[in-house]
Amino acid sequence: VRFNKSFLLIILETFINIRMSKKVIALMSGTSVDGIDAALVDISEAENNLEVELLDFISLPYEREFKNKILKAADYKKSRVKEIAELNIEIGEKSLKTVFKLIEKSGYSAVDIDLIASHGQTIYHNLEERPVTLQIGAAPFIAEGSGITTVYNFRMRDLAAGGEGAPLVPYVDYLLYQDQNKNRVLQNIGGISNYTYLPAGAAVSEVRGSDNGPGNMMIDYAVKILTDYQKDFDQDGEMAARGQCSQKLLDYLMEHPFIKKEVPKSSGRIDFGEEYTRKIIARAKKSELSDNDILATITEFTARAIVDSYQRFLNSEINEIIISGGGSYNNYLMQKIREYALREISAAVKVITLEDLGQSSEAKEAIAFAVLGYQTMKGRSNNLPAATGAKRKVVLGDLVPGNDFYDYLNW
Amino acid sequence: VRFNKSFLLIILETFINIRMSKKVIALMSGTSVDGIDAALVDISEAENNLEVELLDFISLPYEREFKNKILKAADYKKSRVKEIAELNIEIGEKSLKTVFKLIEKSGYSAVDIDLIASHGQTIYHNLEERPVTLQIGAAPFIAEGSGITTVYNFRMRDLAAGGEGAPLVPYVDYLLYQDQNKNRVLQNIGGISNYTYLPAGAAVSEVRGSDNGPGNMMIDYAVKILTDYQKDFDQDGEMAARGQCSQKLLDYLMEHPFIKKEVPKSSGRIDFGEEYTRKIIARAKKSELSDNDILATITEFTARAIVDSYQRFLNSEINEIIISGGGSYNNYLMQKIREYALREISAAVKVITLEDLGQSSEAKEAIAFAVLGYQTMKGRSNNLPAATGAKRKVVLGDLVPGNDFYDYLNW
Repeated sequence: VRFNKSFLLIILETFINIRMSKKVIALMSGTSVDGIDAALVDISEAENNLEVELLDFISLPYEREFKNKILKAADYKKSRVKEIAELNIEIGEKSLKTVFKLIEKSGYSAVDIDLIASHGQTIYHNLEERPVTLQIGAAPFIAEGSGITTVYNFRMRDLAAGGEGAPLVPYVDYLLYQDQNKNRVLQNIGGISNYTYLPAGAAVSEVRGSDNGPGNMMIDYAVKILTDYQKDFDQDGEMAARGQCSQKLLDYLMEHPFIKKEVPKSSGRIDFGEEYTRKIIARAKKSELSDNDILATITEFTARAIVDSYQRFLNSEINEIIISGGGSYNNYLMQKIREYALREISAAVKVITLEDLGQSSEAKEAIAFAVLGYQTMKGRSNNLPAATGAKRKVVLGDLVPGNDFYDYLNW
Repeated sequence: VRFNKSFLLIILETFINIRMSKKVIALMSGTSVDGIDAALVDISEAENNLEVELLDFISLPYEREFKNKILKAADYKKSRVKEIAELNIEIGEKSLKTVFKLIEKSGYSAVDIDLIASHGQTIYHNLEERPVTLQIGAAPFIAEGSGITTVYNFRMRDLAAGGEGAPLVPYVDYLLYQDQNKNRVLQNIGGISNYTYLPAGAAVSEVRGSDNGPGNMMIDYAVKILTDYQKDFDQDGEMAARGQCSQKLLDYLMEHPFIKKEVPKSSGRIDFGEEYTRKIIARAKKSELSDNDILATITEFTARAIVDSYQRFLNSEINEIIISGGGSYNNYLMQKIREYALREISAAVKVITLEDLGQSSEAKEAIAFAVLGYQTMKGRSNNLPAATGAKRKVVLGDLVPGNDFYDYLNW
């Protein structure tokens, strides 16, 4: 049976020009450690273009205690091998649970799903001496529990090829968002902010991408610290809107080594996490800034760091900036990005959200990993050396066999 | 080209009965944290039997500083996510270096090698609350650097199937060492000791296997602690041979919870590591035992725990005990195992070493992982639920694509 199916597929795909589509579930857990996002997408190919349709999406938040366990495992001083080893399995199990919930909500069943792509939870990402990254969330638990082939550990292969393992999304942005006439920036604002620059009609080698600096991370930490963990984030940017930005503190923040570093570069908790935010708050308190002033300044820093990176690293016209991620819901942050972009980039630049284009902002990163996983199974290189610094294009990801995997592998 | 090769292979394998052989390199790093063993084997199939030939073998010891970094990462209190994430990559790089050294020594070149199977370095294995295990050594570095498809992370899939992820070697022992007439025990003595029981001519479901208890681990730690790290191990068992076993301390050791636990069970540093050895030495010193007495007692405990597990868990005749691993070079330990076996098992039992059979003792475990990796690529289940406690047979291991991987995968 195994042999026959594979044999038939090859015959079909080769001699008859049928269009095969695959259903892929992708799991994404961001640096903000909020939970697991899961997207179910349908991917098909037509004339060398991928067509990607979002079928369903869910977001499963981590319980507070679980989130704290992850933050502890990611903390230099508090981390212990015991918790890291346990979390590796527990995040694998939570990922599986998320897959089941998404499948149930979507009305499909597990046998309809061809592939799972899992990012895992980053608990370490440091580029000081050399690129080192660590994502956990044991994919064998996902593949075993669901019976679905699972691709994971995407970043490590790029590191092995001399890259930083990040950012990976620019490659997918190129496939899905390039326009023939407009020079586009795709700007994602998660815990960390990262962008992709897509020159109109350009080749993949001309795509640029990098982390900009903090996304929601410093804003969220500042709210938590200042409200003694009564609030988690600045809803709609309301606190920041009531404050006054301190130019002095803003200038100091812009001196952060990550902001001044050349591309390619990638960032994480180590640059803009709780420790750094506490340091900045202590500094602000000395200058007698109010809580709202601090939020206004950190939010303005986040916006300015984003636009600053376009100015410094893209010496080409920008027609459109498309913003996605949680940060696109922070009105004050969006307003500041717009102000800086119109002033520093061009009075003609359009700043819109992905949702203005009728697309899901919250699902964007998960969708990107669905495409990355799909390309892995097709054996197509899916890193972008210009963005990650890798020495060559490679096929990212490790494969964990599902029930039908050996229908396709004939070794 | 990709399509054609795969297509041709399928035709060849199906319609012409040719015998295909694969060259596999396996990498093994034991709980003793000595370094990386690497075996190059040729695996072919004839009438449903695997034929395995060892072509070459090397052992690359860790430098002392590197070993200490691993021991620190595996230590509950000293471990930190930074070192764990760094070691994951560094062990991946050392694994790659080991592959290159073995290939060079063997006279083959990388394109001759079909597959790498990598065990990785265990830094956590605990079964107290639930089975949790963690092997590190980033396989994408091995596959990227060598261009050879790499299978790794074998234990996690068994955990996902409800098992303990260990022992895995009994499955291979069954394939390679079963005899039609003799009931055999394959006894390996590495850091931890583990056995496989192979009833004559029995089905795979009748194979039993488990960890016995400490292998060289407690002996080695005792030597280190007692000689203030001037010596690493008890050469030929000479220290133990000059001492006197304390029956009182031996009885106390036999009360260790792991020894009394029912099968299936698997052990590690957490049971018989430095902390426990220090505790036992402190107890011995109170009874004024000499250093050699302590070594004699711990060595006798190691031997007795091995034979005790046959008595308790195998209620069937044993004709032959075949001993492999570093412990087979410890004459005093071998002598004690022989004494216990002849007294407690049967006066007719033969206790021999794997080398008495003309086979490599040091390469045995690496060879086993070569076979496990080969079976993974063939899509054959390679865990033994009776040994690991898994709820079902599964295909172990995650796959990292090498240069020719997509010649075989048509998804």
